[in-house]
Amino acid sequence: MIRPLLQEVRHNPLLWLLVFVPAVFAGEVLAPEAPTLLFVLSVLAIVPLAALLSHATESVAAKTGDAVGGLLNATLGNLTELVIALTALRAGQYLLVKASIAGAIVTNTLFMLGAAFLLGGLKHHLQDYNRAGARLQAGLLFLATVALLVPSAIAGADRAPGAEFTETLSLGLAVLLIATYALGMVFSLGTHRTFFASAGNAHAGEAPWPMALALGTLAGVTILVALVSEVFIASVEEAAESFGMSPAFVGFIVVALVGGAAEMASAFSAARKDRLDLSVGIALGSSSQIALFVAPVLVLLSYVMGPAPMDLQFWPGAVVMIMIATLTAALVTNSGRSAWFVGVLLLMVYLIFGLTLYLLPPGVG
Amino acid sequence: MIRPLLQEVRHNPLLWLLVFVPAVFAGEVLAPEAPTLLFVLSVLAIVPLAALLSHATESVAAKTGDAVGGLLNATLGNLTELVIALTALRAGQYLLVKASIAGAIVTNTLFMLGAAFLLGGLKHHLQDYNRAGARLQAGLLFLATVALLVPSAIAGADRAPGAEFTETLSLGLAVLLIATYALGMVFSLGTHRTFFASAGNAHAGEAPWPMALALGTLAGVTILVALVSEVFIASVEEAAESFGMSPAFVGFIVVALVGGAAEMASAFSAARKDRLDLSVGIALGSSSQIALFVAPVLVLLSYVMGPAPMDLQFWPGAVVMIMIATLTAALVTNSGRSAWFVGVLLLMVYLIFGLTLYLLPPGVG
Amino acid sequence: MIRPLLQEVRHNPLLWLLVFVPAVFAGEVLAPEAPTLLFVLSVLAIVPLAALLSHATESVAAKTGDAVGGLLNATLGNLTELVIALTALRAGQYLLVKASIAGAIVTNTLFMLGAAFLLGGLKHHLQDYNRAGARLQAGLLFLATVALLVPSAIAGADRAPGAEFTETLSLGLAVLLIATYALGMVFSLGTHRTFFASAGNAHAGEAPWPMALALGTLAGVTILVALVSEVFIASVEEAAESFGMSPAFVGFIVVALVGGAAEMASAFSAARKDRLDLSVGIALGSSSQIALFVAPVLVLLSYVMGPAPMDLQFWPGAVVMIMIATLTAALVTNSGRSAWFVGVLLLMVYLIFGLTLYLLPPGVG
Repeated sequence: MIRPLLQEVRHNPLLWLLVFVPAVFAGEVLAPEAPTLLFVLSVLAIVPLAALLSHATESVAAKTGDAVGGLLNATLGNLTELVIALTALRAGQYLLVKASIAGAIVTNTLFMLGAAFLLGGLKHHLQDYNRAGARLQAGLLFLATVALLVPSAIAGADRAPGAEFTETLSLGLAVLLIATYALGMVFSLGTHRTFFASAGNAHAGEAPWPMALALGTLAGVTILVALVSEVFIASVEEAAESFGMSPAFVGFIVVALVGGAAEMASAFSAARKDRLDLSVGIALGSSSQIALFVAPVLVLLSYVMGPAPMDLQFWPGAVVMIMIATLTAALVTNSGRSAWFVGVLLLMVYLIFGLTLYLLPPGVG
Repeated sequence: MIRPLLQEVRHNPLLWLLVFVPAVFAGEVLAPEAPTLLFVLSVLAIVPLAALLSHATESVAAKTGDAVGGLLNATLGNLTELVIALTALRAGQYLLVKASIAGAIVTNTLFMLGAAFLLGGLKHHLQDYNRAGARLQAGLLFLATVALLVPSAIAGADRAPGAEFTETLSLGLAVLLIATYALGMVFSLGTHRTFFASAGNAHAGEAPWPMALALGTLAGVTILVALVSEVFIASVEEAAESFGMSPAFVGFIVVALVGGAAEMASAFSAARKDRLDLSVGIALGSSSQIALFVAPVLVLLSYVMGPAPMDLQFWPGAVVMIMIATLTAALVTNSGRSAWFVGVLLLMVYLIFGLTLYLLPPGVG
Repeated sequence: MIRPLLQEVRHNPLLWLLVFVPAVFAGEVLAPEAPTLLFVLSVLAIVPLAALLSHATESVAAKTGDAVGGLLNATLGNLTELVIALTALRAGQYLLVKASIAGAIVTNTLFMLGAAFLLGGLKHHLQDYNRAGARLQAGLLFLATVALLVPSAIAGADRAPGAEFTETLSLGLAVLLIATYALGMVFSLGTHRTFFASAGNAHAGEAPWPMALALGTLAGVTILVALVSEVFIASVEEAAESFGMSPAFVGFIVVALVGGAAEMASAFSAARKDRLDLSVGIALGSSSQIALFVAPVLVLLSYVMGPAPMDLQFWPGAVVMIMIATLTAALVTNSGRSAWFVGVLLLMVYLIFGLTLYLLPPGVG
């Protein structure tokens, strides 16, 4: 029964990185005082685990039929990001949680989408894709941006209205966002599914695993991700310092690239095969899922698992970046058509963000 | 001659609320120390008066031919809002005037349009409407947003440039906005009327009244609205307190819903009948009319009727909400096509605003 | 050989203003203490010089074939603005340099495009133009806006991160912008040139000059512009004061209108001839060229020619205006269709900016 798993490992070079999973645990025992080494090992270990998690989710989804499968993909599609964020949440590192949420939204919207457009465009002169799906995701992202922007804009306008206001408001917003996300699924998987036909199944090319293997992988790998995340979270701050990177850069860029590596591989490969519907669906779907599902779920879970309630008030710089990323996605996907330069524009916006964060002195952000 | 009026009252349940008009005046005499009661009575009385005013305006418009009629609708279409605001203006309650202007723009753009999309979409799978009209209104709204945003953004950037600057600028902006509104009418009712064919007549289904009745109703009801508004304005602050609502919530949400109730009834009924052109025209037309006609007229009138000149500098939180509402309308109406989930998105943005304002502690906003 | 030059002068009334070029130099000697006179003379002299420069550039471009010609137009198309800004740069007047950059972007995007739409629309009922070109330019402008917005938004969010951060970041952003501009040319003149067919040659109606005359004019007139600019820069501040104009108004509006007069003449004439592709190409192309080429080149040159490095951190009010101008252009050109009222909307946005800047008391901005 484990054979499909081994077969997958042999064919997918990304999975060879699985060797770093035991290396992390060995490192933790042998070199507990080497945060930079532990950081690098944990990064290298998370990438293949995320790929396994992603494949297992889709295998379960493929076996359970369209509606349940769509639901599963929509809730577990960013399980890696969720587990990493939960680990940081339990450690009380709320700034890192928020940075990684904002970073994942921005990275998926700009880098993943932009690189997919560029890689696809270098091979194909013009690429068309389903506008309906892109518009739905952009609309959801827009709503999430409003939810992040309005509290700070309205409240911070003249006087800070206190922590209680922010907490209650965040709780209400979290409920609204999850409700919208659920209604969005009713819309795209239910009443109007014909409009969003092709954007559903991510790894369409690969054969799904048997149910038992998929469920077992899902459970086992989630635990492994949680364990590796702990090493990652514990070492990230000191490692950033020794690399000369600002904490803002690590939280926004590095964590987001690590957590999304598996999805990026899928999105880029689909773009090269001229299946841009799939690429756009993965990139923007992942962004909106983090904004409307992962982030509010973390707020709710912070009441149960965290040392204190987490609110939805983000660093103003992060709000600006999310706003620009959303607006860029809305403007760019408006035409339903892409060429390589569209990818360049998206990547340049991302580079501007990355450069600014990289140069940001510590203490800001 | 009064028979059509009685007939209308019998067929339109909204008008049964007219019984509250005498109740307000009775309450004012019998219970002058019960602001909460007076507030509720005046709210209930304004709704049917607004409906009568609206029908009277359209009856005059229908009798006077297209050009004059369009002009009448465009200037008197928000007579209720104008009279309420004028009452607040004369009382020197400029914060309430501004909150009700901003609230009317946001409520019409997000709530009225969103609920029309949702109600129409629950009955019809997909609904198409005339993009030209929606784009014109969104363009006008965009201009008004710039006029509200730029002064505070440019002036407040480094140092406050003083009240004289703000006053002179507001006067100039008011003239520019009214001029644009007038040119917009030349465009949509004159040179390019064929593009905006169906958006003109709001209550297309109802029979117009005879001219004398319509003019008499217009005059009489305007006076009644003014009298009831005085009770409303005088009681709103204490009533809000006793309901546990922030003043910002009352100014933005309650006043706007009360003043626009009649138009909402029309917009929703048109959407159910799959006449979305009409719904979009009422909702966005009403927003742009308040932004480009009612608000600047109030600035000009404040020099004649108010205790001091009123400027166009709004609370930053209000500017952000108007900006987001305008951008949302521009993005949403871009496709000229709607389904129920589009309505959900608009309503969710409105809910986010409402929730934030509701939770806002007094003293902010 | 000089005959085509004289012929051009006879047929183009704009060039009769060339008489003011010697007048400037005479004035400098005879009335060195009359800044207002020198200011007016230098303004009147720059306009025809800019027209000559523009024609010479296009003549060289027409002779050198499409690819090299496109490149020439793209780099020397705003030579006047570049020379004026360089003169101010060498004088260390960085505020004026930045104001003139921001002003040129805003003026070209709103005034030049708006007046072209209005003038064309008054003659033709509806005008269609190539959306692809407008979208590319709007996309480039959007990127430049992000580059100007993000540093101040991210950095200024909580604490000022110091001049070194701003300088290094500006240098990096300048390189990114120039790279994007170059890739944009590869895209529009190279790999996807068929999509942007008609937007290339600005003065399509006029006969190109012989190569020797064109190159001679290019060299000679550039020197003249530089000399006149020195008078202009030296007199502008005192002149503004005596006209009762705020320095912000002069930097943003007057300098931009003077520097762009020649291009405006071309854009307006093309719009009247129903060649709106050309008008849109000139207006938005000029804006994006200043934002992505002239501005970053000035940053790089400030290390060589200026008294100190110049950064890309603009006055917040200027960033807001550029942002609004870009968003307006993106929304307006989205449909690829224009009527006179679209021009009115663009001009009204410009008027709002102009009015605000005009009324701004000195010391702000």
